[in-house]
Amino acid sequence: PRHDGRAANQLRPLKFKRGYASAAAGSVLVEWGGTIVLCTASVGTDVPPWLAGKGRGWVTAEYNMLPGSTSPRKARKPDGRSTEIQRIIGRSLRAGVDLTALGERTITVDCDVLRADGGTRTASITGGWVALRDAIASLTDETGAPAFAPTAIVGDGCPLRDTIAAVSVGLVNGEPALDLDYPEDSTAAVDMNVVATGAGELIEVQGGGEGTTFRRDQLSAMLDLAMEGLTKITATQLAA
Amino acid sequence: PRHDGRAANQLRPLKFKRGYASAAAGSVLVEWGGTIVLCTASVGTDVPPWLAGKGRGWVTAEYNMLPGSTSPRKARKPDGRSTEIQRIIGRSLRAGVDLTALGERTITVDCDVLRADGGTRTASITGGWVALRDAIASLTDETGAPAFAPTAIVGDGCPLRDTIAAVSVGLVNGEPALDLDYPEDSTAAVDMNVVATGAGELIEVQGGGEGTTFRRDQLSAMLDLAMEGLTKITATQLAA
Amino acid sequence: PRHDGRAANQLRPLKFKRGYASAAAGSVLVEWGGTIVLCTASVGTDVPPWLAGKGRGWVTAEYNMLPGSTSPRKARKPDGRSTEIQRIIGRSLRAGVDLTALGERTITVDCDVLRADGGTRTASITGGWVALRDAIASLTDETGAPAFAPTAIVGDGCPLRDTIAAVSVGLVNGEPALDLDYPEDSTAAVDMNVVATGAGELIEVQGGGEGTTFRRDQLSAMLDLAMEGLTKITATQLAA
Amino acid sequence: PRHDGRAANQLRPLKFKRGYASAAAGSVLVEWGGTIVLCTASVGTDVPPWLAGKGRGWVTAEYNMLPGSTSPRKARKPDGRSTEIQRIIGRSLRAGVDLTALGERTITVDCDVLRADGGTRTASITGGWVALRDAIASLTDETGAPAFAPTAIVGDGCPLRDTIAAVSVGLVNGEPALDLDYPEDSTAAVDMNVVATGAGELIEVQGGGEGTTFRRDQLSAMLDLAMEGLTKITATQLAA
Amino acid sequence: PRHDGRAANQLRPLKFKRGYASAAAGSVLVEWGGTIVLCTASVGTDVPPWLAGKGRGWVTAEYNMLPGSTSPRKARKPDGRSTEIQRIIGRSLRAGVDLTALGERTITVDCDVLRADGGTRTASITGGWVALRDAIASLTDETGAPAFAPTAIVGDGCPLRDTIAAVSVGLVNGEPALDLDYPEDSTAAVDMNVVATGAGELIEVQGGGEGTTFRRDQLSAMLDLAMEGLTKITATQLAA
Amino acid sequence: PRHDGRAANQLRPLKFKRGYASAAAGSVLVEWGGTIVLCTASVGTDVPPWLAGKGRGWVTAEYNMLPGSTSPRKARKPDGRSTEIQRIIGRSLRAGVDLTALGERTITVDCDVLRADGGTRTASITGGWVALRDAIASLTDETGAPAFAPTAIVGDGCPLRDTIAAVSVGLVNGEPALDLDYPEDSTAAVDMNVVATGAGELIEVQGGGEGTTFRRDQLSAMLDLAMEGLTKITATQLAA
Repeated sequence: PRHDGRAANQLRPLKFKRGYASAAAGSVLVEWGGTIVLCTASVGTDVPPWLAGKGRGWVTAEYNMLPGSTSPRKARKPDGRSTEIQRIIGRSLRAGVDLTALGERTITVDCDVLRADGGTRTASITGGWVALRDAIASLTDETGAPAFAPTAIVGDGCPLRDTIAAVSVGLVNGEPALDLDYPEDSTAAVDMNVVATGAGELIEVQGGGEGTTFRRDQLSAMLDLAMEGLTKITATQLAA
Repeated sequence: PRHDGRAANQLRPLKFKRGYASAAAGSVLVEWGGTIVLCTASVGTDVPPWLAGKGRGWVTAEYNMLPGSTSPRKARKPDGRSTEIQRIIGRSLRAGVDLTALGERTITVDCDVLRADGGTRTASITGGWVALRDAIASLTDETGAPAFAPTAIVGDGCPLRDTIAAVSVGLVNGEPALDLDYPEDSTAAVDMNVVATGAGELIEVQGGGEGTTFRRDQLSAMLDLAMEGLTKITATQLAA
Repeated sequence: PRHDGRAANQLRPLKFKRGYASAAAGSVLVEWGGTIVLCTASVGTDVPPWLAGKGRGWVTAEYNMLPGSTSPRKARKPDGRSTEIQRIIGRSLRAGVDLTALGERTITVDCDVLRADGGTRTASITGGWVALRDAIASLTDETGAPAFAPTAIVGDGCPLRDTIAAVSVGLVNGEPALDLDYPEDSTAAVDMNVVATGAGELIEVQGGGEGTTFRRDQLSAMLDLAMEGLTKITATQLAA
Repeated sequence: PRHDGRAANQLRPLKFKRGYASAAAGSVLVEWGGTIVLCTASVGTDVPPWLAGKGRGWVTAEYNMLPGSTSPRKARKPDGRSTEIQRIIGRSLRAGVDLTALGERTITVDCDVLRADGGTRTASITGGWVALRDAIASLTDETGAPAFAPTAIVGDGCPLRDTIAAVSVGLVNGEPALDLDYPEDSTAAVDMNVVATGAGELIEVQGGGEGTTFRRDQLSAMLDLAMEGLTKITATQLAA
Repeated sequence: PRHDGRAANQLRPLKFKRGYASAAAGSVLVEWGGTIVLCTASVGTDVPPWLAGKGRGWVTAEYNMLPGSTSPRKARKPDGRSTEIQRIIGRSLRAGVDLTALGERTITVDCDVLRADGGTRTASITGGWVALRDAIASLTDETGAPAFAPTAIVGDGCPLRDTIAAVSVGLVNGEPALDLDYPEDSTAAVDMNVVATGAGELIEVQGGGEGTTFRRDQLSAMLDLAMEGLTKITATQLAA
Repeated sequence: PRHDGRAANQLRPLKFKRGYASAAAGSVLVEWGGTIVLCTASVGTDVPPWLAGKGRGWVTAEYNMLPGSTSPRKARKPDGRSTEIQRIIGRSLRAGVDLTALGERTITVDCDVLRADGGTRTASITGGWVALRDAIASLTDETGAPAFAPTAIVGDGCPLRDTIAAVSVGLVNGEPALDLDYPEDSTAAVDMNVVATGAGELIEVQGGGEGTTFRRDQLSAMLDLAMEGLTKITATQLAA
């Protein structure tokens, strides 16, 4: 039994408020259980130096916890954990985008955690995709018309290949459990994040533990839970 | 006539959502017209080195615009404008606190701008005070009882001396106007911020312009508008 | 009565040594009471990115206290106070320059405090203007002739609109006083800096206090003192 | 067929030179195919602030590529990739150490890449464990006698729980392959790193791809290859 | 013949204004030809961590060129040249101080270049010693009496062992020349700095050239010139 | 008698392993007594801003001690000593290169100390020259043919003017000694580094002591020892 009464395969409530930060091309406020993350997607006309002149675009992410999102207060300075997380967010979102179709643009997805109650990186990936979709839908060609058909997830010439969603799983009291909140995450023997497409293909699997080990069969059980949860999360993304 | 139809002395709608970031001792989401600022107040047991062992506390502030709060995207790096603003926020809030009554604690008020549409520094001061009040109300003595009477703004031994609120005024098309939004702020000849107590005493007056000058009588007219607006803002703070 | 016997409206002695740092286009050593500030104005051919290609110039300032200018020694690292002050210096000097007439150049005014005895920011603005004037007078056109008529403060095509000067005022022992030195500044209830043109127009008013408040009539009395002092300071600038 | 003629389950040659940097408590030069990494383990008497006074120790890692280890030259500045990798190294090594048995000491494992030909992070974990073992074997108690029985991997009171080794696997031309070199790594559809104990328990699984996805059965085949390779790597570690 | 008519062994005029920055324990404005350097010596009660509790003191130096001291303007950021120079200043001054006699204090000698016309590092060492002497003379014991006999350079228990002075020499148009100014320094084939005690013992010899070489006999001739010049410089220091 | 039995004019064993880091254009592992330094030379197509468009090249150096090269562990952060040393390495190597003949290229020589037992800066210069020579030999013209005759040290159009080598000398127990190891270096009264060409011309002489002085005749005796040692070192470089 989990401390909040959820079943092993039960997600916390997940809500998206699209357009929350209206200056950005795409934005969404993600409320996932007690965790709140603001994801914005901004479009720039520069690409990183190594892509210059190649006709391809880039998608990158930045992740940050606001000082008051946790207790004790988190100082405003770069830390290794945030660096590691934002690299995973960026890789995950790029897996869902055809960078050649995107053209010479950089989309930066900023994920700022307003309240941290576990699962902030999976909320960032999941919400980041919603903000990214809206930013891509806002792109225009030289005539001012939409650059791509905005409603299609996978369409002719549209740089969005599929939905991208993420969820955490772990071993809590020795049992696999889906979508850990902070009390579970901080005591879990193993914590794993699974990123997948709407079609059920894996993008990134990353997990381990501090001071613990796990077996192949436990890995398999956790992946089963994750895939089940991701189906529901994808549906919520599409309905946002 | 103002571009949004407001009268010269008319404020934009102002709302507070207290307790938004529940990990912090005090927190409030401030929505003021199109501007959204999250203010959190966190309590630490250290004081700055120069106060160590003096039995007094400290209140400081940090101000930051999230990358997607404005367009084009604002890079995540310290800038002079933020430094200047957070020093004004800190000075203003300290003016309302009896640091000796506070005891050896540091309260850090973080003001993160989620959406920027003018008046972010005055929203930070005004909301920062609400978060600060809740943080002070949460303090406990060694028995776990409240350290101070939480409802009194000015009471025996309570470190809160009075409400603190701020508002902007300026010369828009040559006329004094209250509470500038971004379109007004970016074209105003003069932009001034006025911070005052609920009792109507001035705490900080700071204003000027880029490439323009103003006269003593214009300064006086702007201060009149500011004091009128601050009365209403203080009432909203107390009702939050 | 003030601790050094000055009248409330009396300035400390003010001297300028022009051309002190001869490598810079304009330079002046300002000795104002016990405060010594070296102001240099250097001309560069680049403008900030946001002005590129617009045919306009830029004036910016940097402020720094040398480690031995105060006791205990001030470490050589950026601090918020210096950032706040250099932004005020830059804004103030820009208010006196027609940036379009200046053309695509950046003038950087560096204000380094050699000895700090109060009023370092107002000495920086006041001396910075003298260095800026000499730097503008040194500009040449493509034939090597002076770009602008060097003696005119306000003349056809000359980017200098007017003199810019600054002075501090405050409430010392409850009474308004002009041009505070360090002993006064560190105990004043309110400390205010007033920047104005030679024509008596206001450019920036910035003041407040740590832990104190003030009334409208006190603000007015301080502004009266400041305007009286600025007339004398402007005359000294012009005679430098 | 692989470009260098290896079988899918074949490792590159792996050699350890223990004691290479003799100033450090433990050190090993790892030559793994064309990759060379110097791992050193240094013992300090401080622990991180959050562990102070708890009687427990800490193991942390730093990873760095020397500028000439790759072409074009890699600038000497922190980058996100190195941060992500060193966090994985640190977590992996900590999983093999009983931090309470270690006592209040910090062991820092530095992994500097002298030549980069793929698999630098797995060489760092694998070699880092060898350096860590020698550093722990060098520890003494207050009498100067060895603090722990040096030959036992798992023994009474010895902080080393088991060997820790890592290897990469990936999908090369659509087929699972073990221990990718740089030409394979840079073209692989999926790149995964598996860290495990000598007993065959998993410590960390981390993998994904840039712009590609993979299936559960492919994940399973890659894990099979990894576990087979890790058995041989562990044997080489113990024989070093 | 030198460009300014000086003989090969002729120094530029050298003047010291002691007490220029009166907040510092020792200070001197050095005017040496066209070069102006402000040297201040500040006394702190901390010593570096590696000296803590050993009863010994420390002398360190910081060197900085003000932005307007040269043309084009020098940006305010640490550079390798300044780091190299301040290490030489610090080593040179420490050679003249008995750190055990000094006791647990750190004296920081700050050398800020107001105008750069060659020889800034030798002016810093030479002036730095004057400031250091005054700072040591200002030290008091617990009764408030002078800690050391202030007039003696070498006396019982006084931490000052001897005067320290520095001068530059070089090969200008193939001929040895003393005390290079900027036009000479920037074209000299070899530039060498010699630091010595008043007794004529060498402390530091550092020289070389960009893209040139020199012979043993040229080194010897340059050292002869330097020692001759240092005798005069020491006399000027003692008369300051 | 020296602690390791060497004669005053006896070098420690010196070995070069060329091509150690094969990704770099030139590389050599230098083993000099107990000191090990990896020198790599990388060729870039950019030159520093101040050389842009002048048709000349640049040679620069970076010096770094790996954390485990010494005990206690050296933290990975820039320090003044490394900055000072890398400037000397860069100046020394540039003295042996005709930068105009090199053309618009930058060669960066990285010197990373794997094990520190004295003489790391002289090993860096001496080994850096070997790596630099191999990097220059690897340069090609637009047809892909070698840009310069690789075997000639001084030849028509070859940018290498001569070999460059460095050695340390010092006063150990009052006697001049060549090529100090760490125990000697840390106790020597004077430590001096001499850089010279194969033709016996001086490039850089830099020496002094912490808290000690020396006489002209001692300087001369140390230079004699250095020149004798450099002849042998040059022969070893050419045979590498």
